[in-house]
Amino acid sequence: MRKRIGFVLLLAGFLSTAQAQQVFTINAPQSPVQLRVENARDGALHYALQYKGQSIIRPSRLGFSLAKPQTELAAFTIERADSSLHDDTWSPVWGEQSFIRNHYRELRLSLRARNTNIQVQMVFRVFNDGIGFRYEFPAQAGFKHFILKEENTQFALATDNQSFWIPGDYDTNEYLYNTTKISEIDALSAAAKEKDIAVQSLIGPTAVQTPLMMKTPGGIYVNIHEAALLNYATMNLVLDKATRTFSSHLVPDAVGNKGYLETPAKTPWRTIIVSDKATDILASKTILNLNEPARIDETDWIKPQKFIGVWWEMHIGKGTWFLEGGKHAANKANVKKYLDFAAKHGFDGVLVEGWNVGWEDWFGNWKEDVFDFVTPYPDYDMAELTRYARQKGVRLIMHHETSGSVTNYERHLDEAFQYMVKNDINTVKTGYVGKIIPRGEHHDGQWMNRHYVHVAEKAAKYKLMVEAHEPSHPTGLHRTFPNWLANEAARGNEFNNAPALGITPEHQTILPFTRLMGGPMDFTPGLFHFKLNEFEASRTTVVRTTLAKQLALYVTMYSPLQMAGDLPEHYEKYPDAFQFIKDVAVDWSDSWYLAAEPGDFITVARKAKGKEAWFVGGITDENARNATVKFDFLPAGKTFVATIYMDGPAADWDKNPTDYEIVQAKVDRNTVRTIKMAAGGGFAIKIQAAEE
Amino acid sequence: MRKRIGFVLLLAGFLSTAQAQQVFTINAPQSPVQLRVENARDGALHYALQYKGQSIIRPSRLGFSLAKPQTELAAFTIERADSSLHDDTWSPVWGEQSFIRNHYRELRLSLRARNTNIQVQMVFRVFNDGIGFRYEFPAQAGFKHFILKEENTQFALATDNQSFWIPGDYDTNEYLYNTTKISEIDALSAAAKEKDIAVQSLIGPTAVQTPLMMKTPGGIYVNIHEAALLNYATMNLVLDKATRTFSSHLVPDAVGNKGYLETPAKTPWRTIIVSDKATDILASKTILNLNEPARIDETDWIKPQKFIGVWWEMHIGKGTWFLEGGKHAANKANVKKYLDFAAKHGFDGVLVEGWNVGWEDWFGNWKEDVFDFVTPYPDYDMAELTRYARQKGVRLIMHHETSGSVTNYERHLDEAFQYMVKNDINTVKTGYVGKIIPRGEHHDGQWMNRHYVHVAEKAAKYKLMVEAHEPSHPTGLHRTFPNWLANEAARGNEFNNAPALGITPEHQTILPFTRLMGGPMDFTPGLFHFKLNEFEASRTTVVRTTLAKQLALYVTMYSPLQMAGDLPEHYEKYPDAFQFIKDVAVDWSDSWYLAAEPGDFITVARKAKGKEAWFVGGITDENARNATVKFDFLPAGKTFVATIYMDGPAADWDKNPTDYEIVQAKVDRNTVRTIKMAAGGGFAIKIQAAEE
Repeated sequence: MRKRIGFVLLLAGFLSTAQAQQVFTINAPQSPVQLRVENARDGALHYALQYKGQSIIRPSRLGFSLAKPQTELAAFTIERADSSLHDDTWSPVWGEQSFIRNHYRELRLSLRARNTNIQVQMVFRVFNDGIGFRYEFPAQAGFKHFILKEENTQFALATDNQSFWIPGDYDTNEYLYNTTKISEIDALSAAAKEKDIAVQSLIGPTAVQTPLMMKTPGGIYVNIHEAALLNYATMNLVLDKATRTFSSHLVPDAVGNKGYLETPAKTPWRTIIVSDKATDILASKTILNLNEPARIDETDWIKPQKFIGVWWEMHIGKGTWFLEGGKHAANKANVKKYLDFAAKHGFDGVLVEGWNVGWEDWFGNWKEDVFDFVTPYPDYDMAELTRYARQKGVRLIMHHETSGSVTNYERHLDEAFQYMVKNDINTVKTGYVGKIIPRGEHHDGQWMNRHYVHVAEKAAKYKLMVEAHEPSHPTGLHRTFPNWLANEAARGNEFNNAPALGITPEHQTILPFTRLMGGPMDFTPGLFHFKLNEFEASRTTVVRTTLAKQLALYVTMYSPLQMAGDLPEHYEKYPDAFQFIKDVAVDWSDSWYLAAEPGDFITVARKAKGKEAWFVGGITDENARNATVKFDFLPAGKTFVATIYMDGPAADWDKNPTDYEIVQAKVDRNTVRTIKMAAGGGFAIKIQAAEE
Repeated sequence: MRKRIGFVLLLAGFLSTAQAQQVFTINAPQSPVQLRVENARDGALHYALQYKGQSIIRPSRLGFSLAKPQTELAAFTIERADSSLHDDTWSPVWGEQSFIRNHYRELRLSLRARNTNIQVQMVFRVFNDGIGFRYEFPAQAGFKHFILKEENTQFALATDNQSFWIPGDYDTNEYLYNTTKISEIDALSAAAKEKDIAVQSLIGPTAVQTPLMMKTPGGIYVNIHEAALLNYATMNLVLDKATRTFSSHLVPDAVGNKGYLETPAKTPWRTIIVSDKATDILASKTILNLNEPARIDETDWIKPQKFIGVWWEMHIGKGTWFLEGGKHAANKANVKKYLDFAAKHGFDGVLVEGWNVGWEDWFGNWKEDVFDFVTPYPDYDMAELTRYARQKGVRLIMHHETSGSVTNYERHLDEAFQYMVKNDINTVKTGYVGKIIPRGEHHDGQWMNRHYVHVAEKAAKYKLMVEAHEPSHPTGLHRTFPNWLANEAARGNEFNNAPALGITPEHQTILPFTRLMGGPMDFTPGLFHFKLNEFEASRTTVVRTTLAKQLALYVTMYSPLQMAGDLPEHYEKYPDAFQFIKDVAVDWSDSWYLAAEPGDFITVARKAKGKEAWFVGGITDENARNATVKFDFLPAGKTFVATIYMDGPAADWDKNPTDYEIVQAKVDRNTVRTIKMAAGGGFAIKIQAAEE
C-alpha cells in the first residue's frame, strides 16, 4: 500500500527559473537521517546525508556517462518533484523475523538532461536507518536502447572513517577483510597477499567492493551497498583520496561496456545504512525493503534446511572429487553413510560434491564442455541412492559446479533440473569457480548477474531451491526469489583450508556487517576438528576458532540453509556439542541484535519460527572477552531453561579449541548473564520452556 | 574400411639425421594431383601442390602460434611417416548422388616441435581432384589444453590467378563476389560498396574468405576451402601481395584468442580442389569425403523438402514481420491461404516468419531478450493453424530468428524445440541477423561454430531438421549431421531487394564454385515477379534474371530444401512455368555437371532419386549465350519426353524477364540440343518416360 500525501518539502528556489539553485531536504518520520538534494545553477545534481546533524556524506555528484548514445548525463533541469510517505508491513517466506516494516519517505525528481533532453528520474527513499536511491529511465521518445559507459554516482565521505573493505575485483569477493582508515586503503597490496583465490581481476589501488562498512571518528556506523541488483553490473567503488570520494565503478563486459538497458529501466538502489548503534546496522531491513516483492506466488515448497555433505573430506584430503586414485568420496557406500547419519540426526539433506563426470579435468583451462550435470561417475549409483534417500526420509542435495563455463551450464540447465526432479532432489548448490565463459565476461558483470537470476527463475519453474557459490555479492534478491535461499559470495569456512591467509578470528565478526548485509550466507559452519593435517600430514592449516564459536555461528551467521560442515566421525566425537547443531532452528520469527562491534564481537538472539524456543549466539575475534547477555527478549512471566555451550576455562582457538563446557541455567526476561569468550571463541545458547 | 598398404614413398633423406632435408612426394592412384612435403634443415615444414606437372601451390609453410603455452610450432622433427590407401563408397542420407566414392592416399607425419617437444601430426590426403590436410594434436603428457593465437597455414599461389572472392569478415559472408587477379584484390574498397549488410567486421585490405575460387592463366581451376569445421574458428585468408601468399587468419573470440583446444584435437581440413575442367570442381565430393560419417543412426525422419513461405511479401513491403501497423503477414487468414496453396500444389511445408512476439524491436541494439520462440502474436493462432496444417497434410516450418542473441536462444532452445514437436513442426529455419551475444563473439568464431553444431545436435534429439541463415560458411558438415539440411551463408535471392548492389546476373554462376562447395544453400529461388515496386512504389530494386533462369536454379543450386520464394498470386499468373517448380525433385541419385565456367555459365543434369525422371538446369550471366546439352546421361535404348522451359525470343533480364517458352521434345541419350539463354537467362528441363 502506498499513501500519496502532500507534505511540505523543505526547499529553496523550487519552481524558480532553471538557472537557480534548487535544494530539497527530506527526513523520514522520527528519523535521525536527513537527506539533502541540490541542483546547482549549472545543472549538476548532488545529494548529501546527515545523521543526527553530523555530516556523513558531503555533497556528492549523480549522473551517467553513456556509450550509446555517446553523451554525459551530468547537468539536469528538474521538471517536477513529488514526495510520498510509505508505511506497510510484509512477511517474508522465511527470514530473521516474521514481519518487516517498510517505512520511508520518498522524493522523486523528474529530470531532463540539459544537453540531450533525455529524461531521468531520481528516486530517493529515506528510512529510519538510512537511505536508498536509484536512477530510473522512463519510456520516452527517441531514447529506448542505451549502453552504459559508467555510472557516475559519488559517495564523498565527510570523515576519514575506519573501514572494513576488500579489494575491488570483477571476479571474486572471497577476500579477507582489511581494516584501515579510508585514507589508508591499499587494495593492490592487500590483494597481492591473497594466494588462494582462483581468479582475480583487480581494478586498482583504491578500488573496494561493497558492502563497505565504516565507522566515523565520532562513532557513527555507515554501510554503503546496493539493493535489487537485477539486469545490471555490480558496483565497485573507486576512491579519490584527495577528496575522500568514492565513485561507482561498474563491472564491464567483454567489450568494455558496462550495461545494456532499455527504457523503462531502473538501476539497483544505492544504499547507505547509518546508525550510532552497530546493532542497528545488523538489524536493518532497508536493503530487503528496497527489493521487489516475491515473484513466486505459491511458496509452500520452499523450506529452510539443515544439511550435511560429502564435501569437507575432499577439502582436507581424505577424499577426492575426481574418480581416479582410489579416494573418490562420492561413492555409493560413503554417500549411504552420510544418508544414515543425516537420518539419525534429523538433517534435511545431504549435499554430494564430485558425483558427476568432469572433475578429472574441471578447472583452470577456460574449458567449455566441463560437466553435463546428468552423468554420475560409475561408482555413484544415482537410482539406488535416490531410493535409499527416500527410504531414509532425507533429500540428496544436488551440486552443479560450472567451472565458470556458464554457456555450458545454460545449455544443460533444463535437462539438469529435470534430472533433479526425477531423482527427488529439490535443492541445488551451484558453483562458479574459474574464469567465466562467455570469455571476457566476469562473475560480477551484467551478463552474469542476469544468469544468476535466470537460474533462480528457471529453478522456481521446477520448484527447486538454489544456493550459489562464487556469484556476485547478494543485494537482497532473496525477497524477490525466495527459492534462492543463500549464497557463498565471500570467504566461507572452506578457506580455513587455504594456506596463505586462511580465516582470521575476526572474520566472522565482520561478515554480518559486510557480506551478509545483502543476504544469507552459506558459510558452512560447524567444524569440530581444528588441525587440518589429519589425512595429509603436510597440511599446515588450522581452523582459527574454538568449537563453541563454531556453534555460535549458526545464530550469528543468518541463513535459512545451514550446513554442518564437518565429517560425521568428527561430530561423533562430541555428541553433546553436536546436539546444539541438531537443535538450532533455521527459520525465525524474530531476532534481537544484543551487542556488536565490527571486527570485534557480535551477540544475537533469535526466536525459532513456530516454536517456543530461542537461540543465542555470541562470538569474539582474536581477543578473549566477556559477553553480557540480557535475556529481556524473552516473554514476561515465564521461566525457561537455557543450555549454554561455552568456551571452557582453557579454551583458545590456537592452543585448545575443543575445550568447551555445557551448562544449564534457569532464565527469565530479567536474567543478565556474563559469559566468558576465549580468544577466537564464542558461545551458543538454546532456550526452551522448563519441563513441566 | 581402411586398407593399410605398404607402398613406396618417393622420398629423399627420410630416416637420415634430423638435420637433413626431408622430402615426401605423394600421388593418389591415377591422380594428376601431386603433393610434395618438405622438412627443411631448420625444421620448417612446407607443402607444395602440382597439377599435371604444373605448379599450383609453391612451397608453403605449416605451423601454429600458441597463446597458451606461449610458443611457436614452426620447426619440427619428423619422427615417423606412415602412408595408406583408402578406397570405399558410402551413401549419403540425401544428396546429389546415391553413392560417393572416397578414394585417397594418406600421408601421416608424426612431428615433434623442436623447441617444446609438442607432438603434432600432419595428415595429408591426396584425391583425384585435390588434397586435404589437417593438423592433429595427439594426447600427450604435458600438453592437454592449449589456446591458439593463430594458425600459420600458407597457400603460396604459383600464378596470378583470376579469383572470385569476397572480403574477409568475422561476421558476414553475404557479399557479392569480386572477380580480379590475386594481385588486384582490394577487400576494403569492395566492402565499402556493400551498404545492405547488417554487420560487417572487416579484417583488412587483402583479406578474403573461402571458398576462394581461382583460375590460373593456364586454365586450371583451383578452389581453397576447409572441411569439417567443428569446434574451431572459421579460416579467412590474408594475402601477402609481394609473395602472392595467402596465410590463414582465424576469427578471434572476445578476448582476441583464436581457439581453445584440448588434446586429442584435430583442426578442420584445409582443402585445395584442382582440375583443368571447371565441371570437376562442381562435381567434387572431396570436401564431403573429408567430413565424418553421420552421427545420427536412425535417419528415416529426415526428408528433403520443397516449401513456400510467408516471407517474400515482407521483403517487398506487402506485409510486415511485426504486428503493429495493420500489415502483419503472419496472421491466421494469410497463413491459411499459404497452407491451401501448398496443399493444392504439393509442397511439403509453409515457412512462417514474423509469427512470434519480438519483431517490434528485434534488431540493431545488441538486445539480449529479443524472442522467446514460444509466444505467437495474438493474430497468429498456433493451435488452429497446427490443426489446419494437419488437415491439409502440410507442415508448418518454424522460424527462429535470434537477432544474433545466441545466449538467449540457447536459454530457450529446449522449450522452443518442444513447442515445435507439440505443434507437429519438424523443420526450423534459424537466423542470426545482428551482432552476436555473447558480446565480443563473432558469427564465424569457434564459439558460434560450436553453437551451430549444438543446435543441429539438439534438433536431432527431437527429430527436427534445421537450416540456418547467417551462419558461418558451410564445410560439408551435412554429412555428419544430415538433419542440418541447408544454410544461407551467402547472398541469397532476398538480396534482390537490396538497393545498393542487389544480385548481379553472374552471381548464381559463381555461388556453386564458392559458397556451395561447402554444402547446400537455401537460395530461395523461384521469383516470378521482377519489378519489386508492386507494393511500395518507391522501391527501385529489380530481380536480375529471367523467369526461366529462376526455374533453372532449382537444378543448378543444389539443396535438399528448396523454397518457392515468391507469392502465391505471382505463381498463379504463370501456372505453366510454375509446373516445373511443382515437378522438380529435391533429392538425386546422380548428377552430371555438363558445362561450367565460374562467373559465366553452368549446366547440370540430375536424376531424381527413386524415379525415372531427370532434370536439367542451365544458367548464364549477363551475357546471352547458347547452351549445348548432350543427353548422354540418359539410359540407353529408351526415348524420353523432355519439357523444356526456356527464355523466349525477346527474353532479357532487364527488358523482358517473363518472356519464356515451354516446348516438348523427344530425347534419347544420343540427342544433342542447343538452347538459347537470354542475357541473365537460363533454362530448365524435365525429362520423363514417354507416355506408353
